[in-house]
Amino acid sequence: MSERLHLNLFTMSSVEHVTVGSWRYPGDQSQRYRDREYWTEVARTAERGGFDAVFFADVRGIYDVYGDSADPALERAVQTPSNDPAYVVPAMAEVTDDLGFAVTKSTSYNHPYQLAREFSTLDHLTDGRVAFNIVTSYLESAAANLGLEERIDHDERYDRAEEFMEVCYALWEDSWADGAVERDATAGRFTDPAKVQQIGHEGTYFDVPGPHGCEPSPQRTPVLYQAGSSDRGREFAAKHAEAVFLSQPSESAITDYITDLESRLADHGRDPDSVAFFPGLVPIVGETEELAAEKYESYVDAIDTEGVLTLLSGFVDMDLSTLDPDQRIEHIETEAIQGVVNAFTTNDDREWTVREVAEFAGLGTTSPVVVGTPEEVADTIESWYRDLGVDGVNVKEVVRPGTLEDFVDLVVPELRERGVLEPLTGETLRERTCGQRGLPAGHPGHNDER
Amino acid sequence: MSERLHLNLFTMSSVEHVTVGSWRYPGDQSQRYRDREYWTEVARTAERGGFDAVFFADVRGIYDVYGDSADPALERAVQTPSNDPAYVVPAMAEVTDDLGFAVTKSTSYNHPYQLAREFSTLDHLTDGRVAFNIVTSYLESAAANLGLEERIDHDERYDRAEEFMEVCYALWEDSWADGAVERDATAGRFTDPAKVQQIGHEGTYFDVPGPHGCEPSPQRTPVLYQAGSSDRGREFAAKHAEAVFLSQPSESAITDYITDLESRLADHGRDPDSVAFFPGLVPIVGETEELAAEKYESYVDAIDTEGVLTLLSGFVDMDLSTLDPDQRIEHIETEAIQGVVNAFTTNDDREWTVREVAEFAGLGTTSPVVVGTPEEVADTIESWYRDLGVDGVNVKEVVRPGTLEDFVDLVVPELRERGVLEPLTGETLRERTCGQRGLPAGHPGHNDER
Repeated sequence: MSERLHLNLFTMSSVEHVTVGSWRYPGDQSQRYRDREYWTEVARTAERGGFDAVFFADVRGIYDVYGDSADPALERAVQTPSNDPAYVVPAMAEVTDDLGFAVTKSTSYNHPYQLAREFSTLDHLTDGRVAFNIVTSYLESAAANLGLEERIDHDERYDRAEEFMEVCYALWEDSWADGAVERDATAGRFTDPAKVQQIGHEGTYFDVPGPHGCEPSPQRTPVLYQAGSSDRGREFAAKHAEAVFLSQPSESAITDYITDLESRLADHGRDPDSVAFFPGLVPIVGETEELAAEKYESYVDAIDTEGVLTLLSGFVDMDLSTLDPDQRIEHIETEAIQGVVNAFTTNDDREWTVREVAEFAGLGTTSPVVVGTPEEVADTIESWYRDLGVDGVNVKEVVRPGTLEDFVDLVVPELRERGVLEPLTGETLRERTCGQRGLPAGHPGHNDER
Repeated sequence: MSERLHLNLFTMSSVEHVTVGSWRYPGDQSQRYRDREYWTEVARTAERGGFDAVFFADVRGIYDVYGDSADPALERAVQTPSNDPAYVVPAMAEVTDDLGFAVTKSTSYNHPYQLAREFSTLDHLTDGRVAFNIVTSYLESAAANLGLEERIDHDERYDRAEEFMEVCYALWEDSWADGAVERDATAGRFTDPAKVQQIGHEGTYFDVPGPHGCEPSPQRTPVLYQAGSSDRGREFAAKHAEAVFLSQPSESAITDYITDLESRLADHGRDPDSVAFFPGLVPIVGETEELAAEKYESYVDAIDTEGVLTLLSGFVDMDLSTLDPDQRIEHIETEAIQGVVNAFTTNDDREWTVREVAEFAGLGTTSPVVVGTPEEVADTIESWYRDLGVDGVNVKEVVRPGTLEDFVDLVVPELRERGVLEPLTGETLRERTCGQRGLPAGHPGHNDER
């Protein structure tokens, strides 16, 4: 457990992220995802609230599994249209001092020599405030547009991701020694070539001789985020992640996940305390219980059930439009549907209809929704922090603006008063979130010979 | 000829751009290329000087042709290390209102579905202030690191670039009709799917079904910059470019280039006046002739001749370290060396040694160096504008800070007083530089059926 609670804002450079339909909510400004000014406001608010970072989800392709058509995703703005999340980061850095930025990039459709340069650049421009959320890509429509015959299958995606990270570590950590950049104007030597080495990577997916084209950035390797949920994904997280984003729908599921991942971390020879766990949480807060409940009801009314099913169909690669929405799921003779229930409900003894799953997943898809006064929401967060062993929470938004502002104005003061949310210390995002300057010993990217 | 003079700053997110050695000049801060604050200062200065845009060059790979080694490029900071130029743009947009940003990206090592999203994002975030400088890549070391067996040969690079642009135009101009985004909260329809179409591109290099994942940005297609110099490159520019950057070493060469390209434009059925010509110019200005001459001498003293030869060797793909620096070039029995003379000298009757070519190319590589008082430099620019038919100049820097600041503080007031440099008008970069909102009729990306 960390010495203080950490906070991330989980968002996306698109109209809808995980609460499909909310763009129709009165006053919602999600359509401003295109505007720089929207994001600089978010940055200022998150920094005022003591957040570690704004965490940008991303997806390539369109959710076209539901009804075998891209139309529902377009009509209902299901993570479409979306912009590249990385570009707004330097503008957000310009209006803040300490806020970090976690950027999602896919190892399936990028090249490590290119991606390594992008993150080195972002880390320089933000003075060491950037994180890389490592994902593999699952939508067939992205593969088709990016030149692959078909989507890479799940396990091979992780094989490629492993090699991808190996190349990145070599470029970020090994290629340029400490002190390689001398800037010795008298000698006329900017860089000492003897301290820059090729990486000579020859692998299954990539051949990258190197050297890295960028000089070392403040963090060298960006802070590494991951959110593995499958067995292979959890193994990947146990090997590479410094911060893990959990999408678990209940407190018991959060505990199970953390226990499982800590055991895997130990198997990889890593200190389980060296990884920060951030479960998602949807805070719906009002000055009184009644106001919070009213807010909750109005948010539920805005849920676009068909839009949610469009999103879930893409997540599980199964066309949920073929099911009767009012049918109980245990009566549906498809194994895959049980995966939907496991992933998107509280997974208890309740019997769910398809529609009920969509309604339940409609606010934040997979994370607990906490409705109440500032004290009640703070109670939940404090108990997660003190009792469940979480290091922080990943705040998921329902309305924009609204969810973040309510949280910062109402819940953050309460968390500060309780001494749970202390000021962050350290010069870089890794120092502030993970308490150290570089990748720790035991991490596969760690280099103690530079 | 344009109704007013246009100005671009030609720069690079690296220590050295086209004046190798200048990082050693007293007070030079080129090593701050990594810092956001360096670029926001540049942006404010350029906007104060009435510039259309800051134009970022870029190169992938390392200049390792000279001496068959990467060491000289590293030691002398020959465009290495360098950062990705695109990321600083939103921070520079944050501190300016009207300044544009031309970003170099290679069609050789990017994918059009990905690049189209990047420029749509930048165009949204800058409110329509972005340009795409289309290049193909020439360094073998970039090909090796980005997964190609070997560099694509010159003509095939342009074949690929042609198809690349075809895909981009379809995504930017055709995929989303005007009015596709309805944002109709009552009807629950964000986008009308009937107004978003697949592009169905199946080609030699790319299969891209579409649709574009971004909604139309203010300019849709970014302003298109190009700098073709070979025959094939000029043909490409004549077909696609809206602004052409000329690297010609003398006034007569500038005239010849413009005449040639205007003829090619006519062959492509395009209005020659619809393309803006920007020759490079290295202004070295002092309050008096003596001060300007002193400045010039001190800059010449800082030139790193071996560094310049490292750069030129990469440009022409020929190891110039194998030549005796003091040998006259006409006595060297290699055809390629004549290309060096043509490209990097005034190409007159003078007999050049290798060293003299390097010294001549040492300030800005290929562009006229104009040394003098503000009036004298303004005279040259005014005569280029009035007599040569240029639309603007691409200001090349010798020292950073220094060249830009001198130009803005000393030459710009003179140009304004003469009525040559009028305020820019229009909402987007294309309106300000090209006088129109969208791609003009006759351009291959133009779509008048949306």
